[in-house]
Amino acid sequence: MVSIMDFTMPKKFFQMLVFNLTLIQIVLGGNVLIWPTDGSHWLNIKIILEELIQRNHTVTALASSATLFINSNPDSPVNFEVIPVSYNKSNIDSLIEHMIMLWIDHRPTPLTIWAFYKELGKFLDAYFQINIQICDGVLNNPKLMARLQKGGFDVLVADPATVCGDLIALKLGIPFIYTLRFSPASTVERHCGKIPAPVSYVPAALSELTDQMTFGERIKNIISYSLQDYIFQSYWEEWNSYYSKILGKPTTLCETMGKAEIWLIRTYWDFEFPRPYLPNFEFVGGLHCKPAKPLPKEMEEFIQSSGKNGVVVFSLGSMVKNLTEEKANLIASALAQIPQKVLWRYKGQKPATLGNNTQLYDWIPQNDLLGHPKTKAFITHGGTNGIYEAIYHGVPMVGVPMFADQPDNIAHMKAKGAAVEVNLNTMTSVDLLIALRTVINEPSYKENAMRLSRIHHDQPVKPLDRAVFWIEFVMRHKGAKHLRPAAHNLTWFQYHSLDVIGFLLVCVTTAIFLVIQCCFFFFQKFGKIGKKVKRE
Amino acid sequence: MVSIMDFTMPKKFFQMLVFNLTLIQIVLGGNVLIWPTDGSHWLNIKIILEELIQRNHTVTALASSATLFINSNPDSPVNFEVIPVSYNKSNIDSLIEHMIMLWIDHRPTPLTIWAFYKELGKFLDAYFQINIQICDGVLNNPKLMARLQKGGFDVLVADPATVCGDLIALKLGIPFIYTLRFSPASTVERHCGKIPAPVSYVPAALSELTDQMTFGERIKNIISYSLQDYIFQSYWEEWNSYYSKILGKPTTLCETMGKAEIWLIRTYWDFEFPRPYLPNFEFVGGLHCKPAKPLPKEMEEFIQSSGKNGVVVFSLGSMVKNLTEEKANLIASALAQIPQKVLWRYKGQKPATLGNNTQLYDWIPQNDLLGHPKTKAFITHGGTNGIYEAIYHGVPMVGVPMFADQPDNIAHMKAKGAAVEVNLNTMTSVDLLIALRTVINEPSYKENAMRLSRIHHDQPVKPLDRAVFWIEFVMRHKGAKHLRPAAHNLTWFQYHSLDVIGFLLVCVTTAIFLVIQCCFFFFQKFGKIGKKVKRE
Repeated sequence: MVSIMDFTMPKKFFQMLVFNLTLIQIVLGGNVLIWPTDGSHWLNIKIILEELIQRNHTVTALASSATLFINSNPDSPVNFEVIPVSYNKSNIDSLIEHMIMLWIDHRPTPLTIWAFYKELGKFLDAYFQINIQICDGVLNNPKLMARLQKGGFDVLVADPATVCGDLIALKLGIPFIYTLRFSPASTVERHCGKIPAPVSYVPAALSELTDQMTFGERIKNIISYSLQDYIFQSYWEEWNSYYSKILGKPTTLCETMGKAEIWLIRTYWDFEFPRPYLPNFEFVGGLHCKPAKPLPKEMEEFIQSSGKNGVVVFSLGSMVKNLTEEKANLIASALAQIPQKVLWRYKGQKPATLGNNTQLYDWIPQNDLLGHPKTKAFITHGGTNGIYEAIYHGVPMVGVPMFADQPDNIAHMKAKGAAVEVNLNTMTSVDLLIALRTVINEPSYKENAMRLSRIHHDQPVKPLDRAVFWIEFVMRHKGAKHLRPAAHNLTWFQYHSLDVIGFLLVCVTTAIFLVIQCCFFFFQKFGKIGKKVKRE
Repeated sequence: MVSIMDFTMPKKFFQMLVFNLTLIQIVLGGNVLIWPTDGSHWLNIKIILEELIQRNHTVTALASSATLFINSNPDSPVNFEVIPVSYNKSNIDSLIEHMIMLWIDHRPTPLTIWAFYKELGKFLDAYFQINIQICDGVLNNPKLMARLQKGGFDVLVADPATVCGDLIALKLGIPFIYTLRFSPASTVERHCGKIPAPVSYVPAALSELTDQMTFGERIKNIISYSLQDYIFQSYWEEWNSYYSKILGKPTTLCETMGKAEIWLIRTYWDFEFPRPYLPNFEFVGGLHCKPAKPLPKEMEEFIQSSGKNGVVVFSLGSMVKNLTEEKANLIASALAQIPQKVLWRYKGQKPATLGNNTQLYDWIPQNDLLGHPKTKAFITHGGTNGIYEAIYHGVPMVGVPMFADQPDNIAHMKAKGAAVEVNLNTMTSVDLLIALRTVINEPSYKENAMRLSRIHHDQPVKPLDRAVFWIEFVMRHKGAKHLRPAAHNLTWFQYHSLDVIGFLLVCVTTAIFLVIQCCFFFFQKFGKIGKKVKRE
């Protein structure tokens, strides 16, 4: 007699063969497609790509013909597929300029919160026009799509700040992974990724609140969540029809984003306030950090000349090149008054008030400087990459945040006692000077920065290794479905159990109504009998 | 001039010295205090203790004078502090018997759910009487407390199924870590640990539901949560006054439990349905699993004699020794009908219907048997330890759950397609036979078991190493406060934002009221003028 097992052997054998071939392929090196976002986002994802290449994988990035940092290095080991777009770099520059001005003019305070979010909505509209060109450049480009189909990719790693990566993965029939810092008010993580965020202690991103909120701040928080949700729902409307058209069925952007296998978040609990998350979220903040390398000779000599006072490192990041003459002079005169030497990354004209202790540089090896034992403080715009380098090396910060997540990032570092903030718009020379003296001379700032550094270094697995592990996991298993919460299968009212609560309320109300009716009936009946008896 | 820094140097130097001494101490080996729970709980925590001892730490366990498994091995490298109690092993045995009967008689169905939870409440009362003796045996025992104070412990690892470990840690002024499988309806994890559990897709423990629920099941789920919460709140009442008395201030059991630095949960996403958690929760299920060792010669020969049919491993765990004669015969006659050989761990009398293919054993090397390539299926009561060994080796299961988490565990394995369940109470010989044939002959069961096995083996760090890492982390840093959510600082109505929502509702209502009043006022005023004008 032939048993069921014998019949199924060929199928099982075939399955084992496919699994083993997949494993062999991964060991020999997989094939990874990247959907990046420009600017500092690229600087972060680049580290992952380099590690993937080191581990024998082939990496291909899709990048528009008008990028700032992506594809700028001809020696890059990453393959590039260029997406033709009609806009150019200056369009992007002006969009960034617009975003910076949005924050500088409308930085959300309780009074300006509505104006801010209205402007944010306008910015999103402008961004939509650029983003949709990139999407069209791939999805409506049969030649490129055919090349990608033939590419045999195992996984797509997307930065969702540029929309459409998920859509391309679905069209290619491969799993995709997100890498992101956050979405405003975690709208994407909450609505599409299904992480819960109790508004009572999880501050809305961009709100500059912490996990310790007063009653007033909790009101601000709930309003921040509601406004950002409202703006995003409107922004998504435009995408929903595009997504439905491309996929040929009614769908939404959010539903598609929810199909991400893993969410690599660019923070960790040294930076983040502890909050709920799901097993397919991995916090890999600081994955780009590494020990300091020796500095160029001239720079090292300048640092050594500071003696026991040490040095201050100052950078406003890669997006800001110039300041107004007045602002630059104000800053330079504050720097001139501290005993430390200062290394200032600044491409603008030399300020008249620049002190002898301050050196200007077009570019600085920021990580190597922050890791130098003589570095006493870091003046930073508060980009996540820079903040993580400061955490890694345990350097206290003076934050001069400008836009996007920067004010929020500095709020985190302030709450953890490792930074002081000055407002670029309103600060005086004295404000900056006091801030600098505080973080340098008050030991608690250095101690807190060192505490964060110890937390960062004391993880079971390094962030970069974890990021790469989960990308390879998705390649090995063709997804990570075992980490996907069933919340994705529920409608919003089912998710919040509104149908169940409604049903139970109806049951309880009916029961109460019936009991009252019965009481009334018996009261009437026995009341009448009572009266009758009395009368008799 | 002496700067602020110079003044603070001695303080900083002292702090660095203390930190470095702590590090040296940890490298040389820390001092760990254990607050265990007996039975299968001990079998799990023992693995962690052995690893801690391997890593040069000193381990001392507090155990009552009437234990089942704890302290049973005189060669154990664990130091024991014996807590004198007035009850004996037979009292514990009868309590366990009581618990088994509770489940067998009242296993929760929609109709018996209330009766079940009422009985569970009674069981908890009986358990309270035993537990409080253990607490008193330490906390009201000045000599033992003085010895523990002198012991210089760095951390206490507690199984919260036996209450009071946290209290001892607080009295000793050391941080504590929990290791647990779950609490009924995750009451402890939710209320004291602050993990969110959306009732729409996170099934209440003990409910035997999965993450895919129909409308009716979601109603059952919400009722399960409510009833278990209610029973626990009542049970906790008794403890709250005890805790307040010991700590000399008004407090609650739950508030004290919430001070745990890390929660080591004895499951992982191979077993668990994906659900939200917090950064101080670590899922270390299967930490006791290891590759199979060679079997005793006689056993290996018996297995080899099964030929290509292979063998079935059968154990109802360490708590159940005997079955009724009728039940044993029923099982034996089912086993006699399969072509596989069967290894049955059974201490009772040899059943009359026992087939030639079945061998009885007082004890079996379960993990080594499950890891044997000839093992085709595992008949199990569904204890977490055994299920994890089956997952580790990729063996499909027939579940015969009896009590505690067992029915729930089997529900998980059924949902993941790796097990079939039979009801010990109602099953016939044919039921067991069909279940066995199904898991052995239908390839999907083996495939799913292998899928879970692959998930289990493909983790960035092994569960045991993660458990030990976080215990050592807490020793190195004297806690893990950076992982503690701010939810612990909120009252329940603040946590649910009821105060903020109430305030906003009042604001909106007032605004609407004012608008209506204004409209009414203007309508009256201009209405009158209108009439006047008309009259004129």
